[in-house]
Amino acid sequence: MYDVDAIRRDFPILSRQVNGKPLVYLDNGASAQKPQAVIDAVTTGYAEEYSNVHRGLHTLSTISTEKYEAVRGRIARFLGAASLEAIVMNTGTTEGINLVAYGWAMPRMEAGDEIVLSVMEHHANIVPWHLLRERQGVRLVWVEPEPDGTLPPEKMLEAVTDRTRLIAVTHMSNVLGTVVDVAAICKGARERGVPVLVDGSQAAVHMPVDVEAIGCDFYAITGHKLYGPSGSGAIYIRPERMAEMRPFMAGGDMIREVHRDEVSWNDPPMKFEAGTPGIVSQIGLGAALDYMESLGMEAIAAHEAGLRDYAAGRLAGLNWLNVQGNAPNKGAIFSFTLEGAAHAHDISTVLDKRGVAVRAGHHCAGPLMDHLGVTATCRASFGLYNTRAEVDVLIDALELCHDLFA
Amino acid sequence: MYDVDAIRRDFPILSRQVNGKPLVYLDNGASAQKPQAVIDAVTTGYAEEYSNVHRGLHTLSTISTEKYEAVRGRIARFLGAASLEAIVMNTGTTEGINLVAYGWAMPRMEAGDEIVLSVMEHHANIVPWHLLRERQGVRLVWVEPEPDGTLPPEKMLEAVTDRTRLIAVTHMSNVLGTVVDVAAICKGARERGVPVLVDGSQAAVHMPVDVEAIGCDFYAITGHKLYGPSGSGAIYIRPERMAEMRPFMAGGDMIREVHRDEVSWNDPPMKFEAGTPGIVSQIGLGAALDYMESLGMEAIAAHEAGLRDYAAGRLAGLNWLNVQGNAPNKGAIFSFTLEGAAHAHDISTVLDKRGVAVRAGHHCAGPLMDHLGVTATCRASFGLYNTRAEVDVLIDALELCHDLFA
Repeated sequence: MYDVDAIRRDFPILSRQVNGKPLVYLDNGASAQKPQAVIDAVTTGYAEEYSNVHRGLHTLSTISTEKYEAVRGRIARFLGAASLEAIVMNTGTTEGINLVAYGWAMPRMEAGDEIVLSVMEHHANIVPWHLLRERQGVRLVWVEPEPDGTLPPEKMLEAVTDRTRLIAVTHMSNVLGTVVDVAAICKGARERGVPVLVDGSQAAVHMPVDVEAIGCDFYAITGHKLYGPSGSGAIYIRPERMAEMRPFMAGGDMIREVHRDEVSWNDPPMKFEAGTPGIVSQIGLGAALDYMESLGMEAIAAHEAGLRDYAAGRLAGLNWLNVQGNAPNKGAIFSFTLEGAAHAHDISTVLDKRGVAVRAGHHCAGPLMDHLGVTATCRASFGLYNTRAEVDVLIDALELCHDLFA
Repeated sequence: MYDVDAIRRDFPILSRQVNGKPLVYLDNGASAQKPQAVIDAVTTGYAEEYSNVHRGLHTLSTISTEKYEAVRGRIARFLGAASLEAIVMNTGTTEGINLVAYGWAMPRMEAGDEIVLSVMEHHANIVPWHLLRERQGVRLVWVEPEPDGTLPPEKMLEAVTDRTRLIAVTHMSNVLGTVVDVAAICKGARERGVPVLVDGSQAAVHMPVDVEAIGCDFYAITGHKLYGPSGSGAIYIRPERMAEMRPFMAGGDMIREVHRDEVSWNDPPMKFEAGTPGIVSQIGLGAALDYMESLGMEAIAAHEAGLRDYAAGRLAGLNWLNVQGNAPNKGAIFSFTLEGAAHAHDISTVLDKRGVAVRAGHHCAGPLMDHLGVTATCRASFGLYNTRAEVDVLIDALELCHDLFA
């Protein structure tokens, strides 16, 4: 039984007010709030058990190392990875995709090689590839979603040529909510010998993920969206791909030996984890994944599907509101504009007066904004603790906007 | 008045026991413990004020952004930087030096160009340069310290040739405690037109730092050693150097516009900060710097100088102990080996039974270990909360080691 009222009590910030109104936090696509279990894990990490990891033999170092390394297993299980060694821990999706760009793609791609991307990608899954375009002459090949926001796998696969070296695609659009059939893309890509990177920043928050079933080569997640701490994260890398990678970030921990004239590397995945990591943040991510698992990813997905349907129905009743994207089985993410003069930023500001936190802007998705013909939208993005009552507050606040700006 | 007993009460972990003994934490060189003010800042950040930064207009996003960006000013003041724009916030020294390696050095260095390094550098200030050696044929030119651990500035400057493109040097050795006269190195380097990167990971923890007075081009610090959270940090970059840099990590926030065929960059320093940062960790770093400033960096340095002198005197009384490095005005860091069979790891283990946390190993300083002719040392490294009584506990535990292994 999914008891959303009980769940909400696990998140201390949800009891606060904003502008004299109860906080209605609908900015989960940007970052999620943290349950007390995560905050406690962080507090305990600092107040009782803190030390650097990997290099110490004393008690605190052993405790920290065991707790930190246990998170690697926790992430592997969360993503369905077949082995611990496939998990590189890092600060989030941006670092994960940069690792792939610098460590795997740059040394093996030449001018004229192609990367197939969807137009729905987040900048984290675009700008690293622009670096390869600028610096190495790699071509970016863009695939547009259908008018409803759907991204048919066959459209991605049709864009593959004999110069395609990578497909980089989101599992769930952070703007449209579209869920992409990445397993079908991976299946077709594998037949064509093309690796696939999946940006799981949004999807992993809202649905069960199994990287082995998907068949991807890279799957990036970010802890702060997963109800975990700032600066936590990981990327799954298929061992065959990891074996092809050269080091990216250089420093301590990722080496075996360092001398004046030579250096040798640690075994993967440590080879790709340089310096003191975000120890306590990562331990907090482990607590966040435990929390999500205690609720059940299927149950979270079902709750959010209910919210999506309810919100979609109520938003459809506002005939002056344009919602972008209505793909079947989309996530509970709604980007919209209001007819008339109201700018997304103005709407966000009015909603905030009612305690409703939504995001306004380009949502780090420039090419999609171009495609939609807008410069900005408002986005209400739901999480595991949101309620139908909060949808109603959103709708009331939007009606106020309409009254003010129409 | 520096009241170390009161200060110790600010650090909750210091009241814990290890193996039935009071914790004597002498592993500060690896990472420092956190005062309650830092833990509280992190807790408040998550429990009351959390949101993503920079892109939102709602109340929580505004609070987070203001608190996060205020840390930039806090770091600028801590380092004596003339402008906020000279501070790139990041996850610590490793990321900072990699930014310089990838963003500044790689695009401008050619085969045969030289980087002058001291043999005392930490791997964080070695391995990024090895990448330039391996990938671009850059030569690493090594300067050895004197037998007492001193690194005369003129020795570094004598290694400069017309092919030298960078001097990379620590401000304080994490193994020997040597404080390097980086201002003199920078002065001479500037006369020769050579930029200087200073690794301030250790020094900034233990003494006042003024990057403008030092005259360096890059000064890297790491938050977790500065009594701040995991995954926090920054690097000072002289604006002329920052203007020469190309992007390193690519993603959101560091761009102005992203389209299918082109991308434009945000203004520095944002150009070098990709993706969602370690928001709450960085806010915690601000609290850590406030805490240190409330004690006063001069007062901290004076307290630690007293500890250093006391510990040096007591360690000198153990004639079976070899302390590595006794440079004048060194930091309170003591690396040592025991005569006879005892391996550094065994010593660390015995000390741990007495509650004493020290590090054993190569301390991420492979070339220095080669130079000293050892594979590992034990290291006792002091912080602002350590006491003479703890030195006595260390000495007693070392005498036990001597009894056990002699």
